[in-house]
Amino acid sequence: MKKLNWGMVGGGEGSQIGPAHRLGAQADGNFVLAAGALDIDAEKGKAYAQSLGVASDRAYANWQEMLDGESAREDRVDLVTVATPNSTHFEITKAFLEAGFNVLCEKPMTMTVEEGEELVRVTEKSGKVCAVNYCYSAYPMVREMRQMVASGQIGKIRLVVANFSHGHHGDATDADNPRVRWRYDPVMAGVSGQFADCGIHAMHMASFVTGDEVESLSADFASTIPSRELEDDAMVNFRMSGGTVGRLWTSSVAIGRQHGFDIQVFGETGGLRWASEQPNQVYFTPVGGRMQIMEKGESGLSDEASRLSRVAIAHPEGFPLAVANIYVDLAAVIRGQTAGALPLAQDGLRSMAAVYAAVASANNAGEWVDARPPMFQT
Amino acid sequence: MKKLNWGMVGGGEGSQIGPAHRLGAQADGNFVLAAGALDIDAEKGKAYAQSLGVASDRAYANWQEMLDGESAREDRVDLVTVATPNSTHFEITKAFLEAGFNVLCEKPMTMTVEEGEELVRVTEKSGKVCAVNYCYSAYPMVREMRQMVASGQIGKIRLVVANFSHGHHGDATDADNPRVRWRYDPVMAGVSGQFADCGIHAMHMASFVTGDEVESLSADFASTIPSRELEDDAMVNFRMSGGTVGRLWTSSVAIGRQHGFDIQVFGETGGLRWASEQPNQVYFTPVGGRMQIMEKGESGLSDEASRLSRVAIAHPEGFPLAVANIYVDLAAVIRGQTAGALPLAQDGLRSMAAVYAAVASANNAGEWVDARPPMFQT
Amino acid sequence: MKKLNWGMVGGGEGSQIGPAHRLGAQADGNFVLAAGALDIDAEKGKAYAQSLGVASDRAYANWQEMLDGESAREDRVDLVTVATPNSTHFEITKAFLEAGFNVLCEKPMTMTVEEGEELVRVTEKSGKVCAVNYCYSAYPMVREMRQMVASGQIGKIRLVVANFSHGHHGDATDADNPRVRWRYDPVMAGVSGQFADCGIHAMHMASFVTGDEVESLSADFASTIPSRELEDDAMVNFRMSGGTVGRLWTSSVAIGRQHGFDIQVFGETGGLRWASEQPNQVYFTPVGGRMQIMEKGESGLSDEASRLSRVAIAHPEGFPLAVANIYVDLAAVIRGQTAGALPLAQDGLRSMAAVYAAVASANNAGEWVDARPPMFQT
Amino acid sequence: MKKLNWGMVGGGEGSQIGPAHRLGAQADGNFVLAAGALDIDAEKGKAYAQSLGVASDRAYANWQEMLDGESAREDRVDLVTVATPNSTHFEITKAFLEAGFNVLCEKPMTMTVEEGEELVRVTEKSGKVCAVNYCYSAYPMVREMRQMVASGQIGKIRLVVANFSHGHHGDATDADNPRVRWRYDPVMAGVSGQFADCGIHAMHMASFVTGDEVESLSADFASTIPSRELEDDAMVNFRMSGGTVGRLWTSSVAIGRQHGFDIQVFGETGGLRWASEQPNQVYFTPVGGRMQIMEKGESGLSDEASRLSRVAIAHPEGFPLAVANIYVDLAAVIRGQTAGALPLAQDGLRSMAAVYAAVASANNAGEWVDARPPMFQT
Repeated sequence: MKKLNWGMVGGGEGSQIGPAHRLGAQADGNFVLAAGALDIDAEKGKAYAQSLGVASDRAYANWQEMLDGESAREDRVDLVTVATPNSTHFEITKAFLEAGFNVLCEKPMTMTVEEGEELVRVTEKSGKVCAVNYCYSAYPMVREMRQMVASGQIGKIRLVVANFSHGHHGDATDADNPRVRWRYDPVMAGVSGQFADCGIHAMHMASFVTGDEVESLSADFASTIPSRELEDDAMVNFRMSGGTVGRLWTSSVAIGRQHGFDIQVFGETGGLRWASEQPNQVYFTPVGGRMQIMEKGESGLSDEASRLSRVAIAHPEGFPLAVANIYVDLAAVIRGQTAGALPLAQDGLRSMAAVYAAVASANNAGEWVDARPPMFQT
Repeated sequence: MKKLNWGMVGGGEGSQIGPAHRLGAQADGNFVLAAGALDIDAEKGKAYAQSLGVASDRAYANWQEMLDGESAREDRVDLVTVATPNSTHFEITKAFLEAGFNVLCEKPMTMTVEEGEELVRVTEKSGKVCAVNYCYSAYPMVREMRQMVASGQIGKIRLVVANFSHGHHGDATDADNPRVRWRYDPVMAGVSGQFADCGIHAMHMASFVTGDEVESLSADFASTIPSRELEDDAMVNFRMSGGTVGRLWTSSVAIGRQHGFDIQVFGETGGLRWASEQPNQVYFTPVGGRMQIMEKGESGLSDEASRLSRVAIAHPEGFPLAVANIYVDLAAVIRGQTAGALPLAQDGLRSMAAVYAAVASANNAGEWVDARPPMFQT
Repeated sequence: MKKLNWGMVGGGEGSQIGPAHRLGAQADGNFVLAAGALDIDAEKGKAYAQSLGVASDRAYANWQEMLDGESAREDRVDLVTVATPNSTHFEITKAFLEAGFNVLCEKPMTMTVEEGEELVRVTEKSGKVCAVNYCYSAYPMVREMRQMVASGQIGKIRLVVANFSHGHHGDATDADNPRVRWRYDPVMAGVSGQFADCGIHAMHMASFVTGDEVESLSADFASTIPSRELEDDAMVNFRMSGGTVGRLWTSSVAIGRQHGFDIQVFGETGGLRWASEQPNQVYFTPVGGRMQIMEKGESGLSDEASRLSRVAIAHPEGFPLAVANIYVDLAAVIRGQTAGALPLAQDGLRSMAAVYAAVASANNAGEWVDARPPMFQT
Repeated sequence: MKKLNWGMVGGGEGSQIGPAHRLGAQADGNFVLAAGALDIDAEKGKAYAQSLGVASDRAYANWQEMLDGESAREDRVDLVTVATPNSTHFEITKAFLEAGFNVLCEKPMTMTVEEGEELVRVTEKSGKVCAVNYCYSAYPMVREMRQMVASGQIGKIRLVVANFSHGHHGDATDADNPRVRWRYDPVMAGVSGQFADCGIHAMHMASFVTGDEVESLSADFASTIPSRELEDDAMVNFRMSGGTVGRLWTSSVAIGRQHGFDIQVFGETGGLRWASEQPNQVYFTPVGGRMQIMEKGESGLSDEASRLSRVAIAHPEGFPLAVANIYVDLAAVIRGQTAGALPLAQDGLRSMAAVYAAVASANNAGEWVDARPPMFQT
C-alpha cells in the first residue's frame, strides 16, 4: 500500500510530543514525514526537518509557508499534525482545514468554546477530517469497552466514574519550576489548570466509552497549593444524555499516584474497569457473576480492538502505540477504508464547553450548569 | 488478668452481627458473655443465651429486664453491646448509660442529630464510655496511618479521598429482595440509603486518619435504580477543619466492586493509601520518592498498630479481628489502661449530622451546607 | 450447644503460638480452656493457666501431671493441643492418644519417620483423632479449591506448583540471632532447615488440594548464607499418585517476599491459583476462557468453604481464623458431626517422609528417591 | 542524523515477527527498509517488499540474491535481520557475517552447539556485530536491574529465580493444531520444546541481569500432554559463575497464566523483581527495609534505562518498543556511538549449550551436567 505523506507543525527538537507523533505516524508504515515547520526558530526547524529525512524544499520556516508550499504541490501532504503551543492550535488548524488538508490537532483543540464551534463548522464545510489527539481512546481495550457497551453487554449504563489523578505537581517547593508553574497560571494555561490538563481526558473517555454526551455538571475546584491561581484538584459530577450519572476526580497533588487515569462503567447487567497504567486488561463483571480479566489479544474481541493490536496476547503494548493507533485510523479514513471511532472536532468542542462549564460552576459554589456547547444545546 | 463481664442486647440466633461481636469480644480472652437479651422473641433469646453459656438468671427476656437485673447485681456486666435494629439504638444506649454501664453501640448510633446530641450529653454526665462500632478504624494499619499523620510524616494534609463502593445491590431484578429493599425505603432506613449505610464509614475514616473534622459539604445523590426512593450512589465533597479538601464516593451499584472501601490521604510531604480488601498493607509515598509498601507487623510500627496485631508479619488478619480490636481497646479503657483511639459518641453524632447535611445538600442541587452538629458549631 | 473442654500443653506466656491456639479454639465458642500445662517452668505455667481462667486443680505442673489428672476426671478435656518444642511433640502426643484423648499436634508431628509411623499406628488403635496443624488447609478458599478439583472442575490434574518463599532470614548480619540461627542448626532443627520449616506446608497443600500423594522426589538444597549448615533455599521436583508433576520452591533469603506461600494447580480443563497473602480469593481459569476471580463468600461455593467463613463477601478473614477453622472441624469430629478435611497423623507422617527423602536426594546430587513412608510403600 | 539502510530476510506477509521487526527498526527513525528477501515464494516476497517501499532492484528473490546484490552495492545495507524459520538461521547469518554485514538473528541462533561455536568464531573474525533477539533484555527496567546489580546495590547475588510459564498450549483438544504441534515435534523443533522456546529467554535474562554465566544444571522435563514427544513443562536448577544458585520454571500448560515471564534476583543486601506483563516497574527491597516500586521514567535511573524510554513516567511502554530498543542499540553500535548491553552471538551459543545440557540432564534423571559450550569450558 502506498505510504501517505505527512506533515507536522511544531514538535521540533527537544519537544516531548514530537517524537511521540513521529513514532505514532511511522510505526506501522502508513505515513512518511514529507513536510514540516517544526520550530518557532525557522532555521532550527528547517535543519531538524531535514535531519529527519524531509526534503529541503519541504522543510519550512513556519506554518504559513508550509500551508502555501504544500497547497501548491500535487503531492501535498495527506495529513497535517498540529503540535504547537496550545494557544496557536485554533488558528493553524483552521487554516489548514480551510485549505483542504486533513488535520490531527493536539489537545486542547482551542482556547474558547467559540473557536471550537468555528472549527466544527469549518471542518464540516471542508469535508476533511479534523481529529483531536485524545489518544487514550485508541487503546485496543478501550475500543473493546466501547464496543461492549454499544452492543449492550452491560445493559443500559447507570453510572460512569473516571479519574485522572497523579502526584507529580505535589511538591510545593517545586511549584515555581517553570515546567510546572505555567499550568496553574491563567495567563498561560487559560481558565482551568488540572481539569483542562488531565481531567478532560477522563471526561472524553466517559463519553467515548458510553456513547453518551455530558449535558450538565457541578464542579468543586481546589488550589491545594495556595500559590496557585488555577485548581490543582477538582471533582466534577455530571449527567449525560440518557440519564447516566458521572463522577470525575482529577488531581495533580495525589502523591504516590503515577498516572492514575482509570474508568469504571456500571450498567444494568454488568460493570467494566480499565486503567491506563495496565492498558492491556479490562475487568468485566456480569451482574451476579465473577470478575473476569479480559486480555488484549484474546480470541473473540471486537474488530475495533483486534485491529489495533500488533503483538500476541499478553505482550504488553503501551502509550506510544495508542498514539500510533490514532494514525492507523487516520490512514484508514484518508484511504477511504473502514476506520474506528476517532476523536473529532466535535469532541474537542465538547471538551472546551465542559471546561468552561466546570469553571463557571466551581466559581459559583458548585451550581449545576449546562455543559454543552451552544450549537449542541438545541 | 480477670476477665470482664460482657452483656449483649440483640444479636440473636441467625443475626449476622451477633457472631461478629461474640468473636470480637471473646477472641482475646478479655470478655466473657455473662448476660444477654438477644432476641425480640423472649423465649428464643433466653434459650439462645443459655446455649452460649449465659447463666439462666442472666438470660433476659428483653433489654429492660436486663437493665434492671444487671443494675441490681454486684457483678454487673462491665460492658453492654447494643446490636438491635437501628431505630432502637438510641433508646437502649441511653438507658444503659444512664444506669452507669459502658456501652458499645452498633452504627448508626441514632436516627437523628438531636438524639445524637443527647447521647453525647448523657455520656458526659455518666462518666462512662459510649463507643460506636466504626470498626474499620481498628485495623492495625489504619491506626498506623493515623499515627503517621499525627506525627507529621506526610506534612499538613491537603486532600483526602475516601470511597466505599460495592455492587451488591446492582441487580434491579433483585431490588425487591427484602434484604436489600429496606435500605432504600425511608420508612425503614431513614433519610439516606447508601451514604448512611456505607459512605459514612468512609467519612468517619477520613476524620479518624486525618484528625480533622468535617465542617461543610456538598452532595450529589442518585437513585440509579429508579424504583428506589433513597440514593444508591452518592458523591460528597467536603471541607475539614484545617482546610483539608475531601472527596467521598459511595455506591451500591458498582458491579464488580466487592468491598471497595479505601482511603487516600495526601499531604505536603507524602501520600498514603489503604484499602479494606487488603487491610494489612499501607502504601506510603514520600514526596519526590518511591512508593513503599508498609506491612502490618514490620518492625518500627507505632504502638497503636503493633498492639493490635496478633500474628507475625504478612500473616493476614481480617475484619473479625478489627472488630476484636474495638473490644481490646474497650477492655483497656474499662481497666484503666492505655487504650487507642476508639470511635466514641461524638463520632456517632458527627456522622448523623453529616448524613442530614448531605441529604439537605442533595435535595438542594448540591448547595454547600454546614455538616457539624449544632452543639459543635460554635 | 455445650462447649467442649480443651487442654493445652505448651503455649505459655510469651509464646507466639499459644495465643493463636487460644484465639482459634475460643473464637467460635466451641471450646473452653479447662486444663493446661503451659510452661516448662511449672509455677509460671500454673499461674498463667489460672490467669486464663483455668481452675487451680487443672493448672498442671507438667504434661505428665496433666495426663494423670485429666485421665482421672469424668469431665476430662475433649481435646489436647500440643504446642511444645518440636522434639517433644512425639512423646506427648503419643501419651495422650494412648490414654484416649483427641490431640491436635503442632507441626512437625515428629522428628523421624519411624516416630511418625508409630503415631499413625497408635492413633488407629486409639480410635481418637490425631490432627496436625497444617492450618493453611483450613482457609475457606483452599477448601474450595480442593472441592473443585475433587469434583472435576479442572479435569485430571497435570501439574501443581507450590512456593513458600520469604526473605526474613536474608540478612547475614542477623544470622547469629538466636531466633533465626537454630533453624539452620541440625542439633536443634533436625535434618532440614527451610524445607522442613516452610516448604513442607507447600507440599502438604499440594496433596491437600489435589488429593494426590507425593510418591517420589528430587531435591536441590542450598545454604546461600555459607555459615548455615542446613539449607535456606530448596527446590523440590516431585511426582504424585496419578502422575501429577510437582514443583516446589522454598526460600528464606528471598528478600522482598513477605509470606510468599502460594499454589497453582493446572488440570486438563482449567487452572487455579491461590496465595496466602490474599487468602480470600482464588483465581480460576477454564481452558480457553478468561481468568475469573472467585471470592470467599460468593454464592454457590461448596459447603466446605462456606461453612468456614464468618463474615460476608469481601470482608477479609485471615490467618488466625484459619487456625480457628481447624478447631471448628475438630469440634465437629468430636461431636460426631460432619467435619471437613482435617490434616491428620498420616499427613504428619507423609511430611516427615518427604523431608527425609528431600535430604537424601539433595545429599546425592538430586537423585530421585521414594518419598513415601515405608508403611505406605506397598 | 542519516538513516541507516536496513535489510530483512524472512518476515514476509502474514508472518508474526516481520511487523514487529519493521516497527522496531523504524519506530525511532534510525533505519529505513532498503532491501529484503521476505518470502520463500520469490514473487510474493518481491511484491511485498516493494509494497513496503523497497526499490524494485533491492526486492530480492531469496537471501542468496540479496547477499550478492547488497555486497555489490556502495550503499549496501548496514544491518540484516534474519527472521526465517529456525533451522535456516545459522546458514544465513553465517553467510552475511562472512560477507561483512552486521546481523540481527532471531532466536534460536542455531540448532546445535557446534553451529553456535562456529558463529562466534565467524563473528569474531568478521569484526561485525552478530546480535540475537533476546529482546526482553532491552526493556528499560531490565536494563536498570542489570545496572543495579552491576553497581552492587543488592550486594553479591545469592539466588536468581526466573519463570516463563503460560497456558496457551494447555488445551489437549487443540494439541494437533499445526500452530502448536510443531513445537513438540523433534523433527521440527529440535531437541527441546518449551524450554528451548520460552525457558531459554528466562535463562538468558538470569545471566543478563546478574552478569553471571550458567555453568551447570539439572533438569526435570515433563510432557504433561502425553501425545507430545518434547516437554511442555520443565524445571531447571542451575549454578552460575560466582556461585549464584538458579531456579527456572517454564511451562506451556499453566492455564490462566498469559505471559508469565518474570525474574527475581536476591542478593546479600536486597532483592529485585520484574515481570514482563507489567514491564515498566521493578520492585526493589533493601534488606531489612520496605519494598519500593521503581517506575520507568523516574528521576535518577541509569543511562541504560532512561535512554531506552520514549515517554514520561507511568506512560506504559510495551513489547514492540523493547524490540525497538534492540535496534536503537544496534544503530548506536553501527554508528560507533555508546550502546547498551546487546545480546550477542556468545549469548546465542550459551543458550544452545544450555538447551542441550538440559535435555541431557532430563534424559538422565536430572543428573548435573556442564551447561557451558566447549569453547568456554576452559
